[in-house]
Amino acid sequence: MQTPAKSRSVSRKTQRSQRDAAETRAAILEAALSEFAEEGIAGARMEAIAAAAGVNKALLHYYFRDKERLYGAALDHVFATLSQRMLEVLERDLPPPEKIMAYAAAHFDFIAASPIYPRMVQREMMRAGRSGSPHMRRIAERYLRPIFLKIMTVMQEGMARGQFRRIDAGHFLVSLIAMNVFYFSTAPMMALVTRRNPLTPQRVAERRAAVMDAVAAMLLTSNPAAAHDAGNGRRKPR
Amino acid sequence: MQTPAKSRSVSRKTQRSQRDAAETRAAILEAALSEFAEEGIAGARMEAIAAAAGVNKALLHYYFRDKERLYGAALDHVFATLSQRMLEVLERDLPPPEKIMAYAAAHFDFIAASPIYPRMVQREMMRAGRSGSPHMRRIAERYLRPIFLKIMTVMQEGMARGQFRRIDAGHFLVSLIAMNVFYFSTAPMMALVTRRNPLTPQRVAERRAAVMDAVAAMLLTSNPAAAHDAGNGRRKPR
Repeated sequence: MQTPAKSRSVSRKTQRSQRDAAETRAAILEAALSEFAEEGIAGARMEAIAAAAGVNKALLHYYFRDKERLYGAALDHVFATLSQRMLEVLERDLPPPEKIMAYAAAHFDFIAASPIYPRMVQREMMRAGRSGSPHMRRIAERYLRPIFLKIMTVMQEGMARGQFRRIDAGHFLVSLIAMNVFYFSTAPMMALVTRRNPLTPQRVAERRAAVMDAVAAMLLTSNPAAAHDAGNGRRKPR
Repeated sequence: MQTPAKSRSVSRKTQRSQRDAAETRAAILEAALSEFAEEGIAGARMEAIAAAAGVNKALLHYYFRDKERLYGAALDHVFATLSQRMLEVLERDLPPPEKIMAYAAAHFDFIAASPIYPRMVQREMMRAGRSGSPHMRRIAERYLRPIFLKIMTVMQEGMARGQFRRIDAGHFLVSLIAMNVFYFSTAPMMALVTRRNPLTPQRVAERRAAVMDAVAAMLLTSNPAAAHDAGNGRRKPR
């Protein structure tokens, strides 16, 4: 039998090794996200991921077995975080207009805080070549469909109350996501076309305001900002 | 010296071989577009492109030398076609509101008619890994910046006339393109999330109408559709 002191020491050691394992796993996932977002699954190198995470390649394979499984785990990490944040917003006790505007803002902030994510998401969505993607169905079912269904419910509610214009809720949602994701995923091309950097903090803040204005204009029957702008636009300077 | 008859015959032969060359080049570009859009530049196989175009690999290399040059030529083909169609619309003699709505519709129709294009464009924009993209700067300068500048001019004109809301013209343009491109580039994921096929002719027509409605709501100070919807939304059923 162990003395209490010894038992405590073993228990501490176990806790530390569990924490180390969790930290190692997190470090590997972060490194993998970066590498996959830059290189895609075909171009990503397990050696580069191991080096960036500060672990050896054997340990990397011990944790994730192969590149496809590591890729799947990295995708799950991205979408689980997204899903958790979006559901938190959608479960708030808010009227439909405030809820959709809060969702739009939270989605923008999530994408803006981690421009690596939309790159990876876009890559995954386009991975429909010879190899196909074994992860898309799981991600759609586990992370995205619950968000989609909740938003459809809020949209129906807002329309029934006369707060939302009578628009196609599904198309509205795609447009909202498109306006957020596309801005970041095409930033390198935009920089060349406009000859300015679209990712400075000021321009990202301008983008956020532009998306919120667009969402309000598309969605709300009563939109003070739009009415105000329309008035400004119509008035002739005296 | 050749007799006139012989000269005519040679000339016909030259014409035919020039036409054959142009047709062969076009067939290779079409096959390449398809292969690159599906597989990306890393995964695409010159053998597969040659087979799909019905030429042998030696001829493929004779025309385009290597995969990178073939990829560049395929991208130029995509963007030259896009640019030509968009500039044709922007040079029409129309007031700003009609011109931007016509541009939005023409851009949607271009993307909808060739869903392979946005995939390739998105891939190219995300190709910022180890290899980088040697083509982005050329495409931005040659094909996209002229469209961008023309649209900025139309936007300023529409705002000065009080026909457009006072919005950021650049952000509006990104949102418009995002709504068109993102719908097609993410169709496989959307099919899984919504459990319906977003690419049936009816749903593509619905998407087109949704985008046109969104653009009008975001852009126009006087939007009959929005006013009508707003009215319907506000009125309580008796």
